[in-house]
This record gives sequence, C-alpha cells and structure tokens, in this order.
Amino acid sequence: MPSRPRAGGGARPGVGGGAPSVYFDNAATSNPKPPQVLEAMEHYMKKVCASPGRGGYRWSLDAGRIVYQARAKVRELFNAPALESVAFTMNVTYALNCAIQGLVRPGDHVVTTSVEHNSVIRPLRFMQEAYGIQVTVVQCDGRGMLDPDDVRRAMRPETRTVVMTHASNVVGSVLPVAEVGRVAQEFGAFFIVDTAQTAGVLDIDFAAIGADVLAFTGHKSLMGPPGTGGFVVSSRAAGEMRPLVHGGTGSRSHLETQPEDLPDKFESGTMNTVGIAGLAAGIEFVLSTGLERICEHERSLARRFVDGVREIGGFKLYGPEAPGQRVATVSVGSERGADLANLAYRLDAEYGVMVRSGLHCSPLAHRTIGTFPEGTLRFSFGYFNTEDEVDYAVRALAALATTDM
Amino acid sequence: MPSRPRAGGGARPGVGGGAPSVYFDNAATSNPKPPQVLEAMEHYMKKVCASPGRGGYRWSLDAGRIVYQARAKVRELFNAPALESVAFTMNVTYALNCAIQGLVRPGDHVVTTSVEHNSVIRPLRFMQEAYGIQVTVVQCDGRGMLDPDDVRRAMRPETRTVVMTHASNVVGSVLPVAEVGRVAQEFGAFFIVDTAQTAGVLDIDFAAIGADVLAFTGHKSLMGPPGTGGFVVSSRAAGEMRPLVHGGTGSRSHLETQPEDLPDKFESGTMNTVGIAGLAAGIEFVLSTGLERICEHERSLARRFVDGVREIGGFKLYGPEAPGQRVATVSVGSERGADLANLAYRLDAEYGVMVRSGLHCSPLAHRTIGTFPEGTLRFSFGYFNTEDEVDYAVRALAALATTDM
Repeated sequence: MPSRPRAGGGARPGVGGGAPSVYFDNAATSNPKPPQVLEAMEHYMKKVCASPGRGGYRWSLDAGRIVYQARAKVRELFNAPALESVAFTMNVTYALNCAIQGLVRPGDHVVTTSVEHNSVIRPLRFMQEAYGIQVTVVQCDGRGMLDPDDVRRAMRPETRTVVMTHASNVVGSVLPVAEVGRVAQEFGAFFIVDTAQTAGVLDIDFAAIGADVLAFTGHKSLMGPPGTGGFVVSSRAAGEMRPLVHGGTGSRSHLETQPEDLPDKFESGTMNTVGIAGLAAGIEFVLSTGLERICEHERSLARRFVDGVREIGGFKLYGPEAPGQRVATVSVGSERGADLANLAYRLDAEYGVMVRSGLHCSPLAHRTIGTFPEGTLRFSFGYFNTEDEVDYAVRALAALATTDM
Repeated sequence: MPSRPRAGGGARPGVGGGAPSVYFDNAATSNPKPPQVLEAMEHYMKKVCASPGRGGYRWSLDAGRIVYQARAKVRELFNAPALESVAFTMNVTYALNCAIQGLVRPGDHVVTTSVEHNSVIRPLRFMQEAYGIQVTVVQCDGRGMLDPDDVRRAMRPETRTVVMTHASNVVGSVLPVAEVGRVAQEFGAFFIVDTAQTAGVLDIDFAAIGADVLAFTGHKSLMGPPGTGGFVVSSRAAGEMRPLVHGGTGSRSHLETQPEDLPDKFESGTMNTVGIAGLAAGIEFVLSTGLERICEHERSLARRFVDGVREIGGFKLYGPEAPGQRVATVSVGSERGADLANLAYRLDAEYGVMVRSGLHCSPLAHRTIGTFPEGTLRFSFGYFNTEDEVDYAVRALAALATTDM
C-alpha cells in the first residue's frame, strides 16, 4: 500500500482528523455543513426543546417560531406562493411519495423520465401494481438529457401527472423543468418536480417552472442536517392531494379526521424541529452566499475534474459536455473494465478520497447511459470542496489507473 | 401581575435562563435531554456527516455503525426479536400510519379503544372513508381504564387488527396491553401498540405483550431529539405489511420495486442519522438509569402533585387513583368552570410553569372522561423534574385559584 499523501490543501472545517479526508459524495449528503447549522441545532436542544404548535407556553412558542422562520426561508428560496404552501417532511423521498401517492388515482396515466431516482420510480411501480396506474417513461439520451418534445409526445388526454427530477443524481444532467412544466400545464396535468440534486445550487422559481409540487431535501445542497426535507405545493394540488400520514396536527384537535388546513394537512405528528432549525440556518447560508456563486464554484470543480480525468485517460466520462447543462455530479467508468467498487475502496483506503460506486438508487438512469448493472464511480462536488482536492483526486485516480485495478 | 417567584430549586441543566422555568409538558417532548444526546448529535455533525448504507467509504460506514448501534439499543429496550425487526421513522405517528395503513385491507374490521390519540384515530377514520374498513371503538371507563373483556366482546371472526395505546396521553391511564395481546392472538388478529407515553418508563417486552407492531417515539421518555421514532415488527406482520413510502434504500438498487428485506422495506430515503445518534444516546441513558428508577421517580411526582392539588381544592382530577395504574401525566379541570387556556397562560406568564391546555390531539379520550370539548389542563412530569418543582406548581395553582380565573 502506498503511503497516503496529504490532501493538496483541502482543509475541512470541523470534519476529519489529521489524515487527509477528501469528501466527494455531496450528492448523497453535503459535508461539511456551515457552522451555523449545528449552532442552530444546539440552540434548539439547549434553549427550546419543546414541540411547536402544541402548547401556548414560551418554549413551545419558541419552537413554533423556529418552524415559521424555516418555512419563510424555504418560501424565499423557491418563491413559494405562501408560507402555508411549504410542508416539512423527513426527506425528499417522503415528499415525493406524498405527492405521487397523494395525487395519482387508480387508473391514472403518469409520465416520467428514464433518469429518475428510485424515490420516483418505486412509488410509481407500486401504484402500477396496486392501483393499475399506467406509467410512461420518457427516454433521455445517453448523456441523461431530456427533450421536452418527447414528453409532449408521451402525453395523453387522460394524463394526470408528470413527475420528474430536475437533475440526474447519476450524471448531473439538468433537465428542462420549465419547458416540461408548460407541457404539463397545457394538458392540465399536475407537475411534480424532484429538486434533490438542484435545490441550493440552481435558481428554482416554483411558479416559473409551473410546478404543483416541488419536493426538496434538506441535507444536500441546502446544507441542512439529514432528517429534513419537504415540499412546496400549489393551491390547486393541495386540495386534491391526500396526506400520506394522518394524525395529530395540534390543530382542530376535536376532529377525528385530518384537517384540510395547510400545512397541517401534511404535517402530522411531532416535527423534527431540531433538524428544521438546522435547515433554516443552512438555507440562510445558501441565500447569503448566493446561488450563482455556489453553482459557479461547483461547476468549475466539475469541469476541472472532467478535464483532469480526460487527460489521464483510461476512464469513461458520462453526462453532458457543456458545464451549463449539468450540476457538479460526475459519473466515471473504466475503459479497461476495472472493478469500480474496488476502485472506490482503494480511493478511500489509500488516498482518503470518499466517493460512491454502484447504481446510486437509479437503475433506470444506468440503463439510459449504458452502465447497467455495473454502475459508475460517482464524484459529486460541494461548495466547500477546493481545486486542490480535485487535483489530488485526479492524481489518485491516475496512480490507481497504473496499478492492477 | 405578582412578582415571579423562583422555582423551588428545580435547576434545569442546560435549559432556561435566570427566570424560573418549570417544564411540565414531558408528554409532548421530554425536556431537558441528558447531555449525551446533544454530544452524540454533535459528533455526527462534526465527525461523520454522511449517509449510512449509501457508500463504502469511512464516513458512510461510521454513519452505518451509528444506525446499527441505535437499532441494537431499541432491540435491547423492547426485547425485539432481531435487529432487522427495528425500523426508524420520523415519529410515532408515521410508525402507526405505516402499521395501520400497511396491515389493514379494504373491508377489514379493526378494534381500537376510546382513549386513542389522533395518530391512531385519524388513519382509521381515513381508511373507513377511503377503503370501507369497519372500526369498533371499545369504551374505556371514566378514568380512562380499559377492561380487556370488552375488547374480547368486540372481536369478530373477521377482525384483522387490534390497535391501541399503552397509556392515555390525556390522563396517563395504563392499558392492559398484554391481556389485549392475548385476545388478539386468540383471534389471529394483528396487534399494534402505541407506546408513545410508556416507552422509556414502563418495561415493555415485545413478545410478552404479543405485539406485531410496537410503535415508539424518540423524543419523549426515550430522551432522544424530535424527528425520531420507529417500530418493532414481528416477522409475520412484516411480510404482510406494505411500506408507506417507496424509494431508495441503498439496497437492491437494480430493482424498480421496493425490496422486501428488513428493515430496508420500511426505511426509504436518507435517514435522520443525526437524530438517530441522539436517540441511541437517549436510550442508553434510560437503560443505564433503569426503567424502574425512572418510573418510580415520575410516579412519585405525579402522586405528590395529585395530593397537592386535592388539598388546595377547586380542581377536578382525572385518571386512575392508584399510582401503579398510571404514568406521570395528570389532567386537571376546574370545579368553577375556569378558562383552562387562560389558566395555562397565567401559569406560564406569571409563574414560569409550562403546561398544556386543550384536547391534546385526543378528542375521543375527552369524550371518554367527560371533558369534551373544553379539554383539560395537562401536567406531565419527566425524570428531570423535582419535588420542589411540583410543590411550586401546586402553590402557583393555589394562588391562581384565589384570583378571578
């Protein structure tokens, strides 16, 4: 085993010890978080530690204010129509299930794309099996790009819902949500958008993309802790959308049925107020830093990485060429058929470079780009990554490419 | 406004400022938490901050170990049949919905009790409306106690599920889950138990009470942060129970359908690993402190409070008399018809005593004890409360009783 070189200067605030630790799995969970995130969580745990909306005493009201402020941040970020159009969930998977299972009715026709995460495909396959819905998967090209005209051709008069990701979690391709949103509107279909890979990086305007449900996760580019996420819902969808979970809302407690009031309808049970406190701090960091700055930095890292990998040779690169067509998630394959799981293992064990190999919960995307079932080696860059870290990882890949991978 | 006296010595570790803060809403969220809980959360945020089961690199494996250890703690606490029989959710409401919606089929007959929280009643009412299930609500007595023979009489050959709480969140009455579990088993029905008010206080043995699903929340007597909870599921129920949420599990990623493996089947999407880290520390605190010690302390506080309130007069006390029949949640009413919301407000504003008034998300329980729709004033004591705090609250109640409430 070669000696482990030091990372090229990528000091990681608050994360890792003396050994080099280069984290390139930001598409799974962003790391590190801005320090304000943990500070907000500590504040909740030490000074509040009560349920929001469940009592009239000080600490419960403090908890309510935390949730209110987080809702306001989400509203600001996505230009949501109203505070009450923002609902919090445990993660984006829950939000997508709530939207899909809540809006799609037995026998409905649904249109989706061939780069969806299992958080979209699995609920659709479940509803296909259980409720006889019909699903049309619109094919993306080999780079993971979608032609909105293909969506238009897939639409039927009875199409009730279009659900799609804003960017592929495998190759980072950005999909034309605004164009597809217009198609959905033309056909009077609900439009559900999964922003797991774009919220906090790209500018997303809820109304401008014509969304009915914009599902987001807190723990990726919104810089919040895991256990947070949610959705923004249009008023036309909110009325028709069934809640996935029914229970105590702290409101209309005399009713034995779920209230229709927003956001209570979709927020049963005790909320993750400590996580939501962290999420609000994360979104505030994103808003004050600026999406453009974040996006530009991450894209420049991705470009630098792609250029570096191309230079050393021996690897395939997936996804769109143009930096403007992608977020900073890059999938790599081996031209010599190297075992990618082993490569990921050695990058971590020998160089401290943490990346993920496999299918990344998106079997369809791999069929689309031709990497099923072996998967890819995924490098996903975050705002706190540096050029030195990218160069270091490229050198590590180059070194491993010369050994018997 | 009278000057605000100091709490009688109830120093609150890490919570509150100079003003007296006497927190008696532990049935909503326990406060404070043992310091180890926040320490475990900080460790995750600073040293791990990755997704469990989603990568093979160090920090992802560290995250996986955190979840594994939490599962082991839950297993130990409830004597769960296996590690994989423990699934984590955002809260107990989600866990109960997963069990109820996952097990009950269209047309089924379900038996429940008249002291259930809306987290049980609302999903049942939803399924009644949407899927034509039949629901029999077994009447508890005016103290909130349940006769298991009444459950037996409610059973039908086609009864598929019995779902009930272990203790009322309004009056603290402990229900005979083991006896009801035997009835359910006789009829071959699934038995779902809501331990929101008892886990971490009473000794609960999954097999001994004959449970198929034991739903728990993390943020009450298990001392964890909000945003945590889950369930233990029997192998016979796990096979039949549908997941509520379908999505990425980090396992069998080639499948476009939800895997049947446990616990993955019920754990889609990124987990709340930071919350789960805190929950593990909370359960460890409970296990090392000892359930008996916790329960005895809380019951003695409840007894002291009941005795004190009885002595000052003018208030009604609900729930069972015998300390062994209750947990430390006490509901109070006014014999003079005082406005309980105003009383709660004044207890907080003038004395720093934080309690909750209203229906506590349990309209049925209030119909049962005769306090619908006005509700009750609920005092719920936790392990960190002291006798001095109880005495102080009784004095505050006595002082307010003499004013024009």
